Amino acid sequence: VTHIADFFGTSKQRLLPAGQTLFNEGDSADGCMYVLLEGSVALLRQGRLLERVDREGVVFGELALIDSLPRSATAQAEEDSRVAVIGRERFRELTLRNPSFALEMMALLARRLRASQPA
Amino acid sequence: VTHIADFFGTSKQRLLPAGQTLFNEGDSADGCMYVLLEGSVALLRQGRLLERVDREGVVFGELALIDSLPRSATAQAEEDSRVAVIGRERFRELTLRNPSFALEMMALLARRLRASQPA
Repeated sequence: VTHIADFFGTSKQRLLPAGQTLFNEGDSADGCMYVLLEGSVALLRQGRLLERVDREGVVFGELALIDSLPRSATAQAEEDSRVAVIGRERFRELTLRNPSFALEMMALLARRLRASQPA
Repeated sequence: VTHIADFFGTSKQRLLPAGQTLFNEGDSADGCMYVLLEGSVALLRQGRLLERVDREGVVFGELALIDSLPRSATAQAEEDSRVAVIGRERFRELTLRNPSFALEMMALLARRLRASQPA
């Protein structure tokens, strides 16, 4: 979903030095999701690697933004990284203005759901 | 997500006698999702109950519509049931016209994703 990055050109950015944790499994929702702009971020659950986010434009941390429940995984930079920060208001605005953004988000959730299911 | 049913008033409907299978795990995607209007439908993977859909307005079968991959579960009526059938075109139309529909769909996918994750 590299092209999803097109929606995030003007967003707030955050720099993550290698090793830094962006959020921890169990943290209460902070109303943000993230888009990788540069680098590599590991998503971990109970220390186990769920997914390595290392392509520009990949969204992560969207679950807690959507349902406001605690973080289901830990996100930790594997190298110096840069992410766009998308807050709840910006997310709603993107959904309202760009149906293709909504369809991309659904496709992303569907992919994660398939990946979470044992074969 | 009972209120999601408001979007489906004029959709095509299908009657499912008790015991009838709507789709089978592994079936190629037929471009449809379903909304329960009446009755009870079991979602099964490899014979194991994943979810019982027994509240009016609950959407199921959305994954194969979104990503066009084979059915990830079997849907079988547990009693005489009635469902609304939502094809791909109608789904796109609903997403384009109703941002709140898109947000509901994301919330549904997020809930299923949470439920699929071991605690």
